[in-house]
Amino acid sequence: MKHIIGCRCVRCGSIYPAAPDITICSCGGILDVLYDYDAVKSKLTKDILCARTDHTMWRYREILPIEEDTTPRGLRVGSSPLYDAPRLTDQLGIGRLYLKDDGLNPTGSLKDRASAMAVTKAAEAGYRTIGCSSTGNAASSLAGNAAAAGIATYIFVPARAPKGKIAQLMMFGAHLTVVDGSYEETYALSKAAIEKYGWYNRNAAVNPYLSEGKKTVALEIVEQLGFKAPDYVAVSVGDGCTVAGVYKGFYDMVQLSLCDRIPRIISVQAAGCCPINTAVMTGDGWIQQEENTYADSIAVGVPRNADKAISAIRDSGGIAVNVTDDEIRAAQRTLGKTVGVFGEPAGVAATAGLIKLCEQGVIERDATVVSIVTGNGLKDIDSAILSVGEPPHSQSDLAAFERLINDNKV
Amino acid sequence: MKHIIGCRCVRCGSIYPAAPDITICSCGGILDVLYDYDAVKSKLTKDILCARTDHTMWRYREILPIEEDTTPRGLRVGSSPLYDAPRLTDQLGIGRLYLKDDGLNPTGSLKDRASAMAVTKAAEAGYRTIGCSSTGNAASSLAGNAAAAGIATYIFVPARAPKGKIAQLMMFGAHLTVVDGSYEETYALSKAAIEKYGWYNRNAAVNPYLSEGKKTVALEIVEQLGFKAPDYVAVSVGDGCTVAGVYKGFYDMVQLSLCDRIPRIISVQAAGCCPINTAVMTGDGWIQQEENTYADSIAVGVPRNADKAISAIRDSGGIAVNVTDDEIRAAQRTLGKTVGVFGEPAGVAATAGLIKLCEQGVIERDATVVSIVTGNGLKDIDSAILSVGEPPHSQSDLAAFERLINDNKV
Repeated sequence: MKHIIGCRCVRCGSIYPAAPDITICSCGGILDVLYDYDAVKSKLTKDILCARTDHTMWRYREILPIEEDTTPRGLRVGSSPLYDAPRLTDQLGIGRLYLKDDGLNPTGSLKDRASAMAVTKAAEAGYRTIGCSSTGNAASSLAGNAAAAGIATYIFVPARAPKGKIAQLMMFGAHLTVVDGSYEETYALSKAAIEKYGWYNRNAAVNPYLSEGKKTVALEIVEQLGFKAPDYVAVSVGDGCTVAGVYKGFYDMVQLSLCDRIPRIISVQAAGCCPINTAVMTGDGWIQQEENTYADSIAVGVPRNADKAISAIRDSGGIAVNVTDDEIRAAQRTLGKTVGVFGEPAGVAATAGLIKLCEQGVIERDATVVSIVTGNGLKDIDSAILSVGEPPHSQSDLAAFERLINDNKV
Repeated sequence: MKHIIGCRCVRCGSIYPAAPDITICSCGGILDVLYDYDAVKSKLTKDILCARTDHTMWRYREILPIEEDTTPRGLRVGSSPLYDAPRLTDQLGIGRLYLKDDGLNPTGSLKDRASAMAVTKAAEAGYRTIGCSSTGNAASSLAGNAAAAGIATYIFVPARAPKGKIAQLMMFGAHLTVVDGSYEETYALSKAAIEKYGWYNRNAAVNPYLSEGKKTVALEIVEQLGFKAPDYVAVSVGDGCTVAGVYKGFYDMVQLSLCDRIPRIISVQAAGCCPINTAVMTGDGWIQQEENTYADSIAVGVPRNADKAISAIRDSGGIAVNVTDDEIRAAQRTLGKTVGVFGEPAGVAATAGLIKLCEQGVIERDATVVSIVTGNGLKDIDSAILSVGEPPHSQSDLAAFERLINDNKV
């Protein structure tokens, strides 16, 4: 990979060659992929991008960590829509709001970007089996992308994972183990099993290439906005890998002179589980927290990518905001009604945080904001039903329906 | 609409002007939109299409029934992936199999193509409210696309509609009524209510523009195959509107010289509800049937688009095949494991039918086949869980996991 200098530890600064199955630094720090931006700059210009017919995440391959002759593997990931949201913009009283609906990726979440990368890197390194732990979305996206690539998966999920994600995993033929324990215990078991059996490691905690896959969401936002960055980008934060990827994508685009700045990151966590935001707010290091939120995908008490995430939020001049489960439920309904986007609880947390900041008057009235919806609401129907309640029933004659409508029950 | 000659009754041949809210012929027959192909031909060429940057269904607007100055409304519909499926191809022993995953449309089904059209036509005609009945997908796609467009919806679904679709409807803010009765009774109530309240009518049974929206799936297939048609296209058939649209799309492309033939349609219905296939097989007219299948989206005992559907299947030299619920469940698991595509039961029925025909030796060994997956498996998780069973649980220590793996339980 001539366009890559190496992988640098975000803690001690050591630099390693970018082997396809590299994990963490000997000091325990996570790694960041370093690009030779001068070499990439002439190969990835605005004109080149505009002329490109590949409408997947791989359209940015010059700034992705794969070999020049690698054929990307997995499903068709990326090019999710960026919706203009005029009614919600008015409601929030800001300049312009866009929703990036990453729940429309093949397995229904932004994690497909990381999993397509993992599957591609595993194939590059010659692995036939991949292992990971996940609260659900990383798992189902790995299982789907690996099935498409003909690669086996061993996957560990905590018992609280929603049924929709479990069903996906089983359908995709993953070797699935439901761990009777917390996410932290699930992660520890996956780590031990991956070491013992020698599988390719897709844990976002230790695999530096996954953030690189996730960053494509930011590359797309810049391109979809006509090579401009918004003033703010709102992101739901759990493990920290996604927000780190979002930052990295904007950072890359600035280095390549494809946009002029990195937007301020609005880091949104659940009030019941917010170790990263607490660290940002206090200026101290992060401390393990309990996982008290129904937004399962961001219920991560021990965030493995905290170092990268906290730096990303701070370096962007970002804002940390926590939201209650009720605020998440309200944002989910608002997004559905005003934009036609149905996100899962963790997926709409970013929008809940943005709504809260707008109500508090924190966001300037002329600001342009992109809110990323990280997962599809169909993954967690039971939560959705609880949020919206039961619909009215009617006998099949018009008179019965008219009574309902006259009573304002429909 | 200068490119449109009018709407012709498929039963009596009467031609009507293409008003945006036209429904059926005075004889009771359904209408088909007639294009002036000579006028369109110079405006929609291979070169023009290849240069186009609009990657939604509206990239084919010259052959769609909207005014030249109409701005399309709704969500970002279309450009669903066409996956090459090498492992399933080998398993089936045919030349080449592609899966068109239309479950990746914004609300998770092919019906988004019809609903985006309905919302656009309703806006053209100045309506502020749209009504429809549906087994679920038409409803949720209408609700989502209308929410994006700021248009109100009144929607009627039968009590058997899966929870996932109900949750979508509620999230999108539809005025929803669950009808305690069959789909036929639900349809009748929607018809009466639409007439009484004067809403725009999105019932695929009577709105000739919805097939036109659906046909874009075929336009895309032709373009994705490099302006070629496959030998066969497998379609799940319920009401008949989708298969009619698929035929129309290929027909258009042939008229425009953008492909050389219409593929033979493999019409797949559930063995427990197959009035259209029965008519095709017997050569008689269709007769109402009970709705005995768990594949809810194609459980239509009174198919309203039977006339168009039966003509489409016959005119293409098509094959009718019925599949049991068990065969649908098996196809769902096969698609997940070998292609990484998770379709809903009705959505994978087409593939179940194709598998059956291949096992029977009906499909030539060198044939190229496209199987359309019409809906996302996440819409019906309960059925999926029943199909795949419960996953194994483990304590969080490695020894417990090793026992599972040694016992072949993972």
